[in-house]
Amino acid sequence: MKDFVFSNTTKVYFGKNQLHHLSEEISRFGKKVLLVYGGGSIKRIGLYDKVIDELKKADMIIYELPGIEPNPHHTTVNKGAAICKKEGIDVLLAVGGGSTIDATKAIAATAKYEGDDCWDIISGKAFVPDNLPIISVLTLSATGSEMDIGGVISNVELNEKRPIFGPTLRPNVSFLDPTTTFSVSAYQTASGSVDIMAHIFDVAYFSDQEEMDMLTRIQEEVLKTVVKYAPVAIKTPNDYEARANLMWASSWALNGFLFSGISQDAICHMIEHELSAFYDITHGHGLAIVIPKWLKYILNENTASKIKRLGVNVFGVDPALDSMDGANATIGAMEDFFFNTLGLKSRLSDLGIDDKNFALMAKKSCAPKGKLTGFSTLTPADVENIFRLCL
Amino acid sequence: MKDFVFSNTTKVYFGKNQLHHLSEEISRFGKKVLLVYGGGSIKRIGLYDKVIDELKKADMIIYELPGIEPNPHHTTVNKGAAICKKEGIDVLLAVGGGSTIDATKAIAATAKYEGDDCWDIISGKAFVPDNLPIISVLTLSATGSEMDIGGVISNVELNEKRPIFGPTLRPNVSFLDPTTTFSVSAYQTASGSVDIMAHIFDVAYFSDQEEMDMLTRIQEEVLKTVVKYAPVAIKTPNDYEARANLMWASSWALNGFLFSGISQDAICHMIEHELSAFYDITHGHGLAIVIPKWLKYILNENTASKIKRLGVNVFGVDPALDSMDGANATIGAMEDFFFNTLGLKSRLSDLGIDDKNFALMAKKSCAPKGKLTGFSTLTPADVENIFRLCL
Repeated sequence: MKDFVFSNTTKVYFGKNQLHHLSEEISRFGKKVLLVYGGGSIKRIGLYDKVIDELKKADMIIYELPGIEPNPHHTTVNKGAAICKKEGIDVLLAVGGGSTIDATKAIAATAKYEGDDCWDIISGKAFVPDNLPIISVLTLSATGSEMDIGGVISNVELNEKRPIFGPTLRPNVSFLDPTTTFSVSAYQTASGSVDIMAHIFDVAYFSDQEEMDMLTRIQEEVLKTVVKYAPVAIKTPNDYEARANLMWASSWALNGFLFSGISQDAICHMIEHELSAFYDITHGHGLAIVIPKWLKYILNENTASKIKRLGVNVFGVDPALDSMDGANATIGAMEDFFFNTLGLKSRLSDLGIDDKNFALMAKKSCAPKGKLTGFSTLTPADVENIFRLCL
Repeated sequence: MKDFVFSNTTKVYFGKNQLHHLSEEISRFGKKVLLVYGGGSIKRIGLYDKVIDELKKADMIIYELPGIEPNPHHTTVNKGAAICKKEGIDVLLAVGGGSTIDATKAIAATAKYEGDDCWDIISGKAFVPDNLPIISVLTLSATGSEMDIGGVISNVELNEKRPIFGPTLRPNVSFLDPTTTFSVSAYQTASGSVDIMAHIFDVAYFSDQEEMDMLTRIQEEVLKTVVKYAPVAIKTPNDYEARANLMWASSWALNGFLFSGISQDAICHMIEHELSAFYDITHGHGLAIVIPKWLKYILNENTASKIKRLGVNVFGVDPALDSMDGANATIGAMEDFFFNTLGLKSRLSDLGIDDKNFALMAKKSCAPKGKLTGFSTLTPADVENIFRLCL
């Protein structure tokens, strides 16, 4: 296994009665806060008022940036960064799901950039080593952004969706209250749950790198947690135990521990990002469609045993099956879970997507190396074939 | 489950070729370093020279405190703190196992104390909120001190062994190189492995508190990691995979993640600390003798199902057994693992311990509340009975 560095500095307040620590935490960073949020669901569930109360308790001067999109736009990020510069913002407060936190990370970096376009940083044209401090109040169990170093931003002019990374982009403090996810719809719960699983598949479980056995088995336990509790949360949205397990699973799927010593290949994410860049679909739903088809496409004698292992240890596939049959049974069990148990649509055509952009999307997904490498090696032609299987 | 805060700020360099980062990390904290170590094994394996080279590369002014005892004495801690004050030490560097790191933590706190006796802090007479920064280079997979907030110090005058805790006592940086444990003896590998398992049993797995299912299952995977790799490391001391899995398991058993939301009861540790306070025996070996007898003593209809679950999920006990039979089979499997597979002696009398101090030790283990509470409630009479079962 490879040498690695593990360091995760995010302080997490987890539970029902933790938000009252927000005032003491935020005032450590200064006086002026930019409150970043999405489409207003935080007002519907009463979270907005609670946050404002905390900020007032800390005598903060409050600026607001509402309207973060589900796949956050770089233009919105730029708007936020401009407010930070104009008003001398000290700290950013993201209240929402992964999109809101991702956008906030990009704002935090762009606020320290001499230029005014975050795409310079995201596209690699500019390097900004510093950013404003970030606090997050999470409302959706999915992306892991609450405890990780990255975010994903969309450039709708270029039809591009790209990550922004940096060790200092980890939130300084994150508040995780499972009750804030009680009102998350069955559809968003399902999509978020697939996103959690996809992080484990994509950054560690399906890899050609030598792994640490303890971590592989812990990855399987986190996956089993999602398989167990996502259906419970869909059926009984106010089930605290289910929501809490999903929330802590989302943070640990991508906070660094589970892929200690493994570089991230993220092949399915690279493929899916093209889908949600072109069509603005829900990331987790796109992943649910792509992952089983990707596994079918790359199934061979080398990959079969790891795919079968997933099925045996996570989906209850019969260990007595041979590798090939076991791997096929795994893919079947996964599809059954995503599309029957979680109720997601199984085909891109169900989401109104046809094949007209497949060739371009496939090419973009393989940039800049011209191919995707890791557990499988995929050329643009391969990715286009996978898209067609998903139709 | 309870609300909790998770925060772990230790930066870990893990692997074969990481020590060259020591110079850059240590120089962040100042110029004067106190190098703390034990009985000289770090010189035998060449680690001492490598560390000194790194310190010289960083132009550090080096002071040394060798001779940390296996159960570190408070008088040795006081000696270290006196050096820190006299010489104006900026940073402490612990090179060794848990005892060395524990002693270093106590030195780090006492160096900031106006008095000169660490026992004032450990006994609760004085409160010191601050400490010198700590870097550790770990050479034994056992105590988890490399990533946790505590340490244990012995007062040989009082026959007392007590913990010191503090959020700032977590090492700032820890170096974990599995190859430094290649020379660890079979006996110390066995004892250290039991210590790792005991942390999971004692602070989370056997608890009367409501748990998070994901974490219980991850605890089982870390336990299975030890059950799988401790025998490999004993048989083939240079097996990198085995040593690496054990080392990362030791850090995660006690770094906070596995007991998110569960207050630590630590009943077996409280009992065993009396043994190693009175007799200076190896902590992990004492635990191996105490734990199965403790489980036997507290086995009843309430406790049986959790004990059986351990056996089924970690030791391969037949799930078809009823709770009582399954729990008994678990205890038997655990004893077989500790005493046959790992080769540890199974009785206190094998370690030269008789019953003459049992009553006093039992009373001390239950101080200050007069009883131990958690998964089981134990009076001093109960603890004395458990000691007798261990004879």
